[in-house]
Amino acid sequence: MRNLRLDLCYDGTRYRGWQRLPGREDTIQGKLETALSRILEQPIEVSGSGRTDAGVHALGQVANFHCDSTMEAAEILRQLRRYLPEDIGIYSCVDVPPRFHARLNARAKTYRYRIWNSEQPCVFQRRYVAVMPERLNLDAMMQAAERLVGEHDFSAFCGNAKMKKSTLRRLDVIDIRRQGEEILLDFTGNGFLYNMARILTGTLVEVGWGERDPKRVDALFGGKREQAGFLAPAQGLCLMEVIY
Amino acid sequence: MRNLRLDLCYDGTRYRGWQRLPGREDTIQGKLETALSRILEQPIEVSGSGRTDAGVHALGQVANFHCDSTMEAAEILRQLRRYLPEDIGIYSCVDVPPRFHARLNARAKTYRYRIWNSEQPCVFQRRYVAVMPERLNLDAMMQAAERLVGEHDFSAFCGNAKMKKSTLRRLDVIDIRRQGEEILLDFTGNGFLYNMARILTGTLVEVGWGERDPKRVDALFGGKREQAGFLAPAQGLCLMEVIY
Repeated sequence: MRNLRLDLCYDGTRYRGWQRLPGREDTIQGKLETALSRILEQPIEVSGSGRTDAGVHALGQVANFHCDSTMEAAEILRQLRRYLPEDIGIYSCVDVPPRFHARLNARAKTYRYRIWNSEQPCVFQRRYVAVMPERLNLDAMMQAAERLVGEHDFSAFCGNAKMKKSTLRRLDVIDIRRQGEEILLDFTGNGFLYNMARILTGTLVEVGWGERDPKRVDALFGGKREQAGFLAPAQGLCLMEVIY
Repeated sequence: MRNLRLDLCYDGTRYRGWQRLPGREDTIQGKLETALSRILEQPIEVSGSGRTDAGVHALGQVANFHCDSTMEAAEILRQLRRYLPEDIGIYSCVDVPPRFHARLNARAKTYRYRIWNSEQPCVFQRRYVAVMPERLNLDAMMQAAERLVGEHDFSAFCGNAKMKKSTLRRLDVIDIRRQGEEILLDFTGNGFLYNMARILTGTLVEVGWGERDPKRVDALFGGKREQAGFLAPAQGLCLMEVIY
Protein backbone atom coordinates (compact mmCIF):
# COMPACT_ATOMS: atom_id res chain seq x y z
CA MET A 1 0.00 0.00 0.00
CA ARG A 2 1.44 3.38 -1.01
CA ASN A 3 1.39 6.37 1.29
CA LEU A 4 1.26 9.86 -0.25
CA ARG A 5 1.76 13.26 1.34
CA LEU A 6 -0.05 16.38 0.19
CA ASP A 7 1.09 19.92 0.99
CA LEU A 8 -1.73 22.33 0.38
CA CYS A 9 -3.31 25.72 0.98
CA TYR A 10 -6.90 26.91 0.94
CA ASP A 11 -9.06 29.96 1.19
CA GLY A 12 -11.52 28.79 3.85
CA THR A 13 -14.18 31.41 3.10
CA ARG A 14 -16.57 29.09 1.24
CA TYR A 15 -15.99 26.00 3.40
CA ARG A 16 -17.45 24.47 6.52
CA GLY A 17 -13.94 23.65 7.69
CA TRP A 18 -11.56 20.76 7.13
CA GLN A 19 -13.57 17.81 8.39
CA ARG A 20 -15.78 15.83 6.03
CA LEU A 21 -19.49 16.10 6.92
CA PRO A 22 -21.94 13.47 5.73
CA GLY A 23 -24.04 14.65 2.80
CA ARG A 24 -22.15 17.95 2.45
CA GLU A 25 -19.86 18.98 -0.36
CA ASP A 26 -18.34 22.06 1.24
CA THR A 27 -15.48 20.78 3.38
CA ILE A 28 -11.82 20.62 2.41
CA GLN A 29 -11.41 16.96 3.36
CA GLY A 30 -14.60 16.14 1.44
CA LYS A 31 -13.36 17.95 -1.69
CA LEU A 32 -10.01 16.17 -1.56
CA GLU A 33 -11.51 12.75 -0.97
CA THR A 34 -14.06 13.14 -3.77
CA ALA A 35 -11.38 14.28 -6.22
CA LEU A 36 -8.84 11.59 -5.24
CA SER A 37 -11.43 8.80 -5.25
CA ARG A 38 -12.37 9.73 -8.82
CA ILE A 39 -8.79 10.10 -10.03
CA LEU A 40 -7.57 6.86 -8.44
CA GLU A 41 -10.84 4.96 -8.97
CA GLN A 42 -10.93 3.68 -5.40
CA PRO A 43 -12.32 5.08 -2.16
CA ILE A 44 -9.68 7.36 -0.59
CA GLU A 45 -9.56 8.62 2.98
CA VAL A 46 -7.42 11.67 3.66
CA SER A 47 -5.89 12.44 7.08
CA GLY A 48 -5.11 16.09 7.76
CA SER A 49 -2.58 17.37 10.30
CA GLY A 50 -5.58 18.75 12.13
CA ARG A 51 -9.04 20.14 11.54
CA THR A 52 -9.45 23.78 10.74
CA ASP A 53 -12.76 25.42 11.72
CA ALA A 54 -15.34 26.67 9.22
CA GLY A 55 -14.00 29.80 7.53
CA VAL A 56 -10.40 29.33 8.69
CA HIS A 57 -7.68 29.43 6.03
CA ALA A 58 -4.48 27.45 5.53
CA LEU A 59 -1.26 28.30 3.75
CA GLY A 60 0.65 25.26 5.09
CA GLN A 61 -1.75 22.38 5.65
CA VAL A 62 -0.36 18.81 5.35
CA ALA A 63 -2.32 15.62 4.73
CA ASN A 64 -1.65 12.02 3.74
CA PHE A 65 -3.58 9.16 2.16
CA HIS A 66 -3.08 5.51 1.27
CA CYS A 67 -3.82 3.93 -2.10
CA ASP A 68 -2.76 0.98 -4.23
CA SER A 69 -2.80 2.79 -7.56
CA THR A 70 0.29 2.72 -9.79
CA MET A 71 -0.34 6.26 -11.02
CA GLU A 72 2.75 8.43 -10.60
CA ALA A 73 2.60 11.06 -7.85
CA ALA A 74 3.26 13.82 -10.41
CA GLU A 75 0.28 12.66 -12.45
CA ILE A 76 -1.96 12.56 -9.35
CA LEU A 77 -0.84 16.14 -8.62
CA ARG A 78 -1.65 17.26 -12.17
CA GLN A 79 -5.12 15.71 -12.10
CA LEU A 80 -5.84 16.92 -8.59
CA ARG A 81 -5.08 20.50 -9.60
CA ARG A 82 -7.47 20.12 -12.52
CA TYR A 83 -10.29 18.67 -10.40
CA LEU A 84 -10.09 20.98 -7.41
CA PRO A 85 -11.66 24.46 -7.27
CA GLU A 86 -9.33 27.45 -7.42
CA ASP A 87 -9.61 28.14 -3.69
CA ILE A 88 -7.78 24.92 -2.84
CA GLY A 89 -4.15 24.84 -4.02
CA ILE A 90 -1.90 21.79 -3.96
CA TYR A 91 1.82 22.58 -3.64
CA SER A 92 3.02 18.98 -3.89
CA CYS A 93 2.05 15.31 -3.85
CA VAL A 94 4.86 12.87 -3.09
CA ASP A 95 5.34 9.25 -2.00
CA VAL A 96 6.43 9.00 1.64
CA PRO A 97 7.42 6.10 3.92
CA PRO A 98 4.46 3.97 5.08
CA ARG A 99 4.72 5.18 8.66
CA PHE A 100 4.22 8.87 7.90
CA HIS A 101 0.95 10.16 9.38
CA ALA A 102 0.04 13.83 8.91
CA ARG A 103 -1.64 14.17 12.31
CA LEU A 104 0.21 11.74 14.56
CA ASN A 105 3.69 12.78 13.39
CA ALA A 106 3.08 16.52 13.67
CA ARG A 107 5.38 17.94 16.36
CA ALA A 108 4.08 21.48 16.26
CA LYS A 109 1.90 23.87 14.33
CA THR A 110 1.91 27.59 13.70
CA TYR A 111 -1.29 29.57 13.37
CA ARG A 112 -1.43 33.23 12.43
CA TYR A 113 -4.23 35.59 13.41
CA ARG A 114 -4.45 38.80 11.37
CA ILE A 115 -6.19 41.81 12.90
CA TRP A 116 -6.90 44.79 10.64
CA ASN A 117 -6.40 47.55 13.19
CA SER A 118 -7.96 50.36 11.15
CA GLU A 119 -11.40 51.28 9.77
CA GLN A 120 -11.15 50.29 6.17
CA PRO A 121 -9.60 46.92 5.35
CA CYS A 122 -7.69 46.66 2.09
CA VAL A 123 -10.14 45.09 -0.40
CA PHE A 124 -7.52 42.51 -1.42
CA GLN A 125 -7.13 41.28 2.17
CA ARG A 126 -10.69 41.63 3.42
CA ARG A 127 -11.41 37.88 3.52
CA TYR A 128 -8.22 37.07 5.45
CA VAL A 129 -8.30 39.60 8.27
CA ALA A 130 -10.63 40.47 11.16
CA VAL A 131 -11.42 44.18 11.31
CA MET A 132 -10.91 45.61 14.82
CA PRO A 133 -10.28 49.35 14.42
CA GLU A 134 -10.04 50.17 18.16
CA ARG A 135 -6.62 51.02 19.57
CA LEU A 136 -4.78 47.99 20.99
CA ASN A 137 -2.09 48.19 23.65
CA LEU A 138 0.52 45.85 22.21
CA ASP A 139 2.80 46.01 25.26
CA ALA A 140 0.00 44.75 27.49
CA MET A 141 -0.81 42.01 24.97
CA MET A 142 2.85 40.89 24.91
CA GLN A 143 2.94 40.82 28.72
CA ALA A 144 -0.13 38.59 28.77
CA ALA A 145 1.28 36.41 25.97
CA GLU A 146 4.40 35.69 28.04
CA ARG A 147 2.22 34.26 30.79
CA LEU A 148 0.30 32.04 28.36
CA VAL A 149 3.38 30.39 26.88
CA GLY A 150 4.40 27.01 28.31
CA GLU A 151 2.67 23.73 29.15
CA HIS A 152 -0.70 24.41 30.76
CA ASP A 153 -4.26 23.17 31.07
CA PHE A 154 -5.97 25.24 28.38
CA SER A 155 -9.50 24.11 29.35
CA ALA A 156 -10.74 27.73 29.37
CA PHE A 157 -9.52 28.12 25.78
CA CYS A 158 -11.42 25.10 24.45
CA GLY A 159 -14.65 25.69 22.51
CA ASN A 160 -15.88 22.14 23.08
CA ALA A 161 -17.67 22.08 26.46
CA LYS A 162 -18.02 18.29 26.30
CA MET A 163 -14.28 17.72 25.81
CA LYS A 164 -13.49 14.45 27.60
CA LYS A 165 -9.79 14.17 26.80
CA SER A 166 -6.87 16.06 28.31
CA THR A 167 -6.80 19.79 27.72
CA LEU A 168 -3.09 19.98 28.50
CA ARG A 169 -1.15 21.60 25.66
CA ARG A 170 2.23 23.27 25.19
CA LEU A 171 2.40 26.73 23.65
CA ASP A 172 5.98 27.40 22.51
CA VAL A 173 5.69 30.90 21.05
CA ILE A 174 3.23 33.75 20.90
CA ASP A 175 4.67 36.44 18.69
CA ILE A 176 2.75 39.73 18.46
CA ARG A 177 3.74 42.54 16.14
CA ARG A 178 2.43 45.42 14.09
CA GLN A 179 2.88 45.38 10.31
CA GLY A 180 1.41 48.38 8.52
CA GLU A 181 -2.29 48.53 9.42
CA GLU A 182 -2.23 44.97 10.70
CA ILE A 183 -1.47 43.31 13.99
CA LEU A 184 -0.19 39.77 13.57
CA LEU A 185 -0.41 37.14 16.29
CA ASP A 186 1.61 33.98 15.63
CA PHE A 187 0.97 30.97 17.84
CA THR A 188 3.24 27.92 17.78
CA GLY A 189 2.40 24.91 19.93
CA ASN A 190 2.32 21.14 20.06
CA GLY A 191 -1.43 21.00 19.69
CA PHE A 192 -4.47 23.24 19.55
CA LEU A 193 -7.84 22.50 21.14
CA TYR A 194 -11.07 23.27 19.29
CA ASN A 195 -11.23 27.10 18.77
CA MET A 196 -8.09 27.52 20.92
CA ALA A 197 -6.18 29.92 18.65
CA ARG A 198 -9.30 32.08 18.25
CA ILE A 199 -10.06 32.17 22.01
CA LEU A 200 -6.41 33.00 22.77
CA THR A 201 -6.74 35.85 20.27
CA GLY A 202 -9.99 37.09 21.81
CA THR A 203 -8.43 37.00 25.27
CA LEU A 204 -5.33 38.91 24.13
CA VAL A 205 -7.49 41.47 22.32
CA GLU A 206 -9.45 42.11 25.53
CA VAL A 207 -6.10 42.74 27.23
CA GLY A 208 -5.18 45.11 24.38
CA TRP A 209 -8.45 47.02 24.87
CA GLY A 210 -7.68 47.43 28.58
CA GLU A 211 -10.65 45.23 29.57
CA ARG A 212 -8.54 42.47 31.07
CA ASP A 213 -5.48 42.56 33.33
CA PRO A 214 -2.44 41.09 31.52
CA LYS A 215 -1.03 39.89 34.86
CA ARG A 216 -4.07 37.71 35.52
CA VAL A 217 -4.38 35.64 32.34
CA ASP A 218 -2.56 32.71 33.99
CA ALA A 219 -5.47 32.46 36.44
CA LEU A 220 -7.38 31.04 33.47
CA PHE A 221 -5.44 27.77 33.35
CA GLY A 222 -7.70 24.89 34.34
CA GLY A 223 -10.67 27.29 34.26
CA LYS A 224 -13.96 27.36 32.39
CA ARG A 225 -14.61 28.60 28.86
CA GLU A 226 -16.68 31.61 30.01
CA GLN A 227 -13.74 32.97 32.02
CA ALA A 228 -11.58 33.41 28.89
CA GLY A 229 -12.06 35.99 26.14
CA PHE A 230 -14.40 36.12 23.15
CA LEU A 231 -14.09 33.86 20.13
CA ALA A 232 -12.28 35.92 17.47
CA PRO A 233 -13.85 35.57 13.98
CA ALA A 234 -12.71 32.60 11.90
CA GLN A 235 -11.70 34.60 8.83
CA GLY A 236 -8.67 36.18 10.55
CA LEU A 237 -7.09 32.81 11.28
CA CYS A 238 -4.71 30.85 9.06
CA LEU A 239 -2.78 27.61 9.61
CA MET A 240 0.70 28.64 8.49
CA GLU A 241 2.91 25.60 9.03
CA VAL A 242 2.99 22.07 10.39
CA ILE A 243 6.34 20.99 11.78
CA TYR A 244 7.38 17.32 11.62
CA MET B 1 -21.87 73.88 -5.21
CA ARG B 2 -19.56 71.70 -3.14
CA ASN B 3 -16.85 69.53 -4.70
CA LEU B 4 -15.82 66.33 -2.89
CA ARG B 5 -12.89 64.03 -3.50
CA LEU B 6 -13.03 60.28 -2.91
CA ASP B 7 -9.96 58.07 -2.50
CA LEU B 8 -10.93 54.46 -2.98
CA CYS B 9 -9.91 50.90 -3.76
CA TYR B 10 -11.76 47.98 -5.28
CA ASP B 11 -11.50 44.32 -6.08
CA GLY B 12 -12.54 44.39 -9.74
CA THR B 13 -13.35 40.67 -9.99
CA ARG B 14 -17.14 41.05 -9.91
CA TYR B 15 -17.33 44.25 -11.95
CA ARG B 16 -17.64 45.24 -15.59
CA GLY B 17 -15.09 47.97 -15.00
CA TRP B 18 -15.26 51.56 -13.82
CA GLN B 19 -17.60 53.13 -16.33
CA ARG B 20 -21.33 53.24 -15.67
CA LEU B 21 -23.32 51.18 -18.18
CA PRO B 22 -26.99 51.88 -18.76
CA GLY B 23 -29.23 49.33 -17.07
CA ARG B 24 -26.36 47.53 -15.35
CA GLU B 25 -25.58 47.45 -11.67
CA ASP B 26 -22.10 45.95 -11.84
CA THR B 27 -19.77 48.87 -12.49
CA ILE B 28 -17.80 50.82 -9.91
CA GLN B 29 -19.01 54.21 -11.08
CA GLY B 30 -22.59 52.90 -11.11
CA LYS B 31 -22.30 51.58 -7.53
CA LEU B 32 -20.86 54.87 -6.30
CA GLU B 33 -23.46 57.01 -8.06
CA THR B 34 -26.37 54.89 -6.83
CA ALA B 35 -25.10 54.99 -3.25
CA LEU B 36 -24.30 58.72 -3.27
CA SER B 37 -27.59 59.67 -4.94
CA ARG B 38 -29.48 57.83 -2.19
CA ILE B 39 -27.39 59.23 0.63
CA LEU B 40 -27.52 62.83 -0.61
CA GLU B 41 -31.05 62.59 -2.04
CA GLN B 42 -30.06 64.17 -5.35
CA PRO B 43 -28.68 62.76 -8.61
CA ILE B 44 -24.89 62.51 -8.32
CA GLU B 45 -22.38 62.08 -11.14
CA VAL B 46 -18.95 60.79 -10.22
CA SER B 47 -15.81 61.51 -12.28
CA GLY B 48 -13.00 59.00 -11.93
CA SER B 49 -9.33 59.67 -12.69
CA GLY B 50 -9.77 57.20 -15.51
CA ARG B 51 -11.70 54.11 -16.48
CA THR B 52 -10.43 50.73 -15.44
CA ASP B 53 -11.37 47.74 -17.64
CA ALA B 54 -13.71 44.96 -16.54
CA GLY B 55 -11.93 42.80 -13.95
CA VAL B 56 -9.13 45.30 -13.28
CA HIS B 57 -8.49 46.25 -9.65
CA ALA B 58 -7.57 49.52 -7.97
CA LEU B 59 -5.76 50.29 -4.75
CA GLY B 60 -5.42 54.01 -5.42
CA GLN B 61 -8.33 55.25 -7.53
CA VAL B 62 -9.43 58.88 -7.13
CA ALA B 63 -12.79 60.41 -8.03
CA ASN B 64 -14.74 63.61 -7.41
CA PHE B 65 -18.37 64.71 -7.43
CA HIS B 66 -20.41 67.86 -6.96
CA CYS B 67 -23.40 68.26 -4.68
CA ASP B 68 -25.28 70.94 -2.78
CA SER B 69 -25.97 68.91 0.34
CA THR B 70 -24.96 70.26 3.74
CA MET B 71 -24.10 66.79 5.04
CA GLU B 72 -20.60 66.72 6.52
CA ALA B 73 -17.97 64.87 4.49
CA ALA B 74 -17.27 62.54 7.43
CA GLU B 75 -20.95 61.58 7.54
CA ILE B 76 -21.04 60.95 3.77
CA LEU B 77 -17.99 58.69 4.23
CA ARG B 78 -19.69 56.76 7.05
CA GLN B 79 -22.87 56.21 5.07
CA LEU B 80 -21.01 55.38 1.89
CA ARG B 81 -19.07 52.65 3.68
CA ARG B 82 -22.34 51.24 4.97
CA TYR B 83 -24.03 51.27 1.54
CA LEU B 84 -21.21 49.91 -0.57
CA PRO B 85 -20.36 46.20 -0.93
CA GLU B 86 -17.22 44.94 0.80
CA ASP B 87 -15.22 44.78 -2.44
CA ILE B 88 -15.28 48.58 -2.77
CA GLY B 89 -13.38 50.40 -0.02
CA ILE B 90 -13.43 54.15 0.57
CA TYR B 91 -10.29 55.53 2.22
CA SER B 92 -11.51 59.11 2.49
CA CYS B 93 -14.12 61.65 1.43
CA VAL B 94 -13.11 65.32 1.76
CA ASP B 95 -14.18 68.74 0.52
CA VAL B 96 -11.79 70.10 -2.11
CA PRO B 97 -11.54 73.39 -4.04
CA PRO B 98 -14.17 73.76 -6.81
CA ARG B 99 -11.58 73.47 -9.57
CA PHE B 100 -10.34 70.00 -8.61
CA HIS B 101 -11.19 67.41 -11.28
CA ALA B 102 -10.07 63.80 -10.77
CA ARG B 103 -9.40 63.15 -14.46
CA LEU B 104 -8.34 66.52 -15.85
CA ASN B 105 -5.94 67.32 -13.00
CA ALA B 106 -4.22 63.92 -12.95
CA ARG B 107 -0.57 64.41 -13.92
CA ALA B 108 0.39 60.73 -13.94
CA LYS B 109 -0.81 57.28 -12.97
CA THR B 110 0.89 54.09 -11.87
CA TYR B 111 -0.45 50.69 -12.84
CA ARG B 112 0.97 47.42 -11.54
CA TYR B 113 0.77 44.13 -13.39
CA ARG B 114 1.34 41.02 -11.24
CA ILE B 115 2.49 37.83 -12.95
CA TRP B 116 2.47 34.63 -10.90
CA ASN B 117 5.55 32.99 -12.43
CA SER B 118 4.96 29.52 -11.02
CA GLU B 119 2.42 26.69 -11.37
CA GLN B 120 0.31 27.11 -8.28
CA PRO B 121 -0.82 30.60 -7.32
CA CYS B 122 -1.19 31.32 -3.64
CA VAL B 123 -4.93 30.94 -2.92
CA PHE B 124 -5.01 34.31 -1.16
CA GLN B 125 -3.65 36.10 -4.24
CA ARG B 126 -5.32 34.10 -7.00
CA ARG B 127 -7.78 36.84 -8.01
CA TYR B 128 -5.08 39.52 -8.25
CA VAL B 129 -2.40 37.81 -10.33
CA ALA B 130 -2.16 36.30 -13.82
CA VAL B 131 -0.65 32.81 -13.77
CA MET B 132 2.18 32.43 -16.31
CA PRO B 133 4.41 29.61 -15.10
CA GLU B 134 6.84 29.63 -18.08
CA ARG B 135 10.34 30.99 -17.49
CA LEU B 136 10.70 34.70 -18.28
CA ASN B 137 13.95 36.38 -19.24
CA LEU B 138 13.81 39.51 -17.09
CA ASP B 139 16.96 41.06 -18.57
CA ALA B 140 15.44 40.96 -22.05
CA MET B 141 12.18 42.42 -20.70
CA MET B 142 14.09 45.28 -19.04
CA GLN B 143 15.95 45.98 -22.29
CA ALA B 144 12.67 46.20 -24.15
CA ALA B 145 11.12 48.33 -21.38
CA GLU B 146 13.90 50.92 -21.76
CA ARG B 147 12.96 51.37 -25.39
CA LEU B 148 9.27 51.83 -24.59
CA VAL B 149 9.80 54.61 -22.07
CA GLY B 150 9.40 58.18 -23.31
CA GLU B 151 6.85 60.12 -25.36
CA HIS B 152 5.65 58.02 -28.29
CA ASP B 153 2.69 57.19 -30.47
CA PHE B 154 1.31 54.13 -28.66
CA SER B 155 -1.28 53.36 -31.40
CA ALA B 156 -0.18 49.67 -31.47
CA PHE B 157 -0.88 49.45 -27.73
CA CYS B 158 -4.45 50.73 -27.97
CA GLY B 159 -7.31 48.22 -27.79
CA ASN B 160 -9.77 50.59 -29.40
CA ALA B 161 -9.40 50.21 -33.16
CA LYS B 162 -11.74 53.16 -33.79
CA MET B 163 -9.70 55.57 -31.66
CA LYS B 164 -10.01 58.95 -33.34
CA LYS B 165 -8.02 61.05 -30.86
CA SER B 166 -4.27 61.29 -30.46
CA THR B 167 -2.51 58.11 -29.34
CA LEU B 168 0.53 60.05 -28.19
CA ARG B 169 1.37 59.31 -24.54
CA ARG B 170 4.37 59.65 -22.25
CA LEU B 171 5.60 56.62 -20.31
CA ASP B 172 7.88 57.79 -17.50
CA VAL B 173 8.84 54.51 -15.85
CA ILE B 174 8.59 50.80 -16.49
CA ASP B 175 9.95 48.99 -13.46
CA ILE B 176 10.25 45.21 -13.70
CA ARG B 177 11.29 43.03 -10.79
CA ARG B 178 10.93 39.62 -9.24
CA GLN B 179 9.39 39.30 -5.76
CA GLY B 180 9.12 35.76 -4.50
CA GLU B 181 7.07 33.80 -7.03
CA GLU B 182 5.83 36.99 -8.64
CA ILE B 183 7.07 39.27 -11.36
CA LEU B 184 5.87 42.83 -10.91
CA LEU B 185 5.63 45.33 -13.77
CA ASP B 186 5.01 48.92 -12.68
CA PHE B 187 4.05 51.43 -15.36
CA THR B 188 3.96 55.16 -14.67
CA GLY B 189 2.82 57.54 -17.37
CA ASN B 190 0.83 60.67 -18.10
CA GLY B 191 -2.04 58.73 -19.63
CA PHE B 192 -3.00 55.22 -20.66
CA LEU B 193 -4.97 54.29 -23.76
CA TYR B 194 -7.69 51.62 -23.64
CA ASN B 195 -6.01 48.29 -22.69
CA MET B 196 -2.56 49.95 -22.95
CA ALA B 197 -1.06 48.61 -19.70
CA ARG B 198 -2.25 45.08 -20.55
CA ILE B 199 -0.92 45.19 -24.13
CA LEU B 200 2.43 46.57 -22.90
CA THR B 201 2.51 43.64 -20.46
CA GLY B 202 1.66 41.10 -23.19
CA THR B 203 4.39 42.55 -25.43
CA LEU B 204 6.99 42.44 -22.66
CA VAL B 205 5.98 38.87 -21.75
CA GLU B 206 6.54 37.81 -25.36
CA VAL B 207 10.02 39.33 -25.10
CA GLY B 208 10.54 37.41 -21.86
CA TRP B 209 9.52 34.16 -23.56
CA GLY B 210 12.08 34.80 -26.33
CA GLU B 211 9.33 35.20 -28.94
CA ARG B 212 10.05 38.85 -29.64
CA ASP B 213 13.30 40.76 -30.08
CA PRO B 214 13.74 43.32 -27.26
CA LYS B 215 15.69 45.60 -29.64
CA ARG B 216 12.75 45.89 -32.00
CA VAL B 217 9.90 46.96 -29.75
CA ASP B 218 10.37 50.61 -30.73
CA ALA B 219 9.41 49.66 -34.27
CA LEU B 220 5.89 49.35 -32.87
CA PHE B 221 5.44 53.11 -32.31
CA GLY B 222 2.81 54.43 -34.69
CA GLY B 223 1.98 50.84 -35.71
CA LYS B 224 -1.13 48.72 -35.69
CA ARG B 225 -2.65 46.80 -32.78
CA GLU B 226 -1.91 43.38 -34.30
CA GLN B 227 1.82 44.13 -34.39
CA ALA B 228 2.04 44.43 -30.60
CA GLY B 229 1.75 41.60 -28.08
CA PHE B 230 -1.25 39.78 -26.63
CA LEU B 231 -3.71 41.34 -24.22
CA ALA B 232 -2.65 40.18 -20.73
CA PRO B 233 -5.62 39.08 -18.56
CA ALA B 234 -7.43 41.84 -16.66
CA GLN B 235 -7.16 40.24 -13.22
CA GLY B 236 -3.38 40.81 -12.99
CA LEU B 237 -3.73 44.57 -13.36
CA CYS B 238 -4.20 47.13 -10.60
CA LEU B 239 -4.33 50.95 -10.62
CA MET B 240 -1.93 51.78 -7.80
CA GLU B 241 -1.75 55.55 -7.68
CA VAL B 242 -2.92 58.74 -9.32
CA ILE B 243 -0.50 61.65 -9.05
CA TYR B 244 -1.83 65.24 -9.00
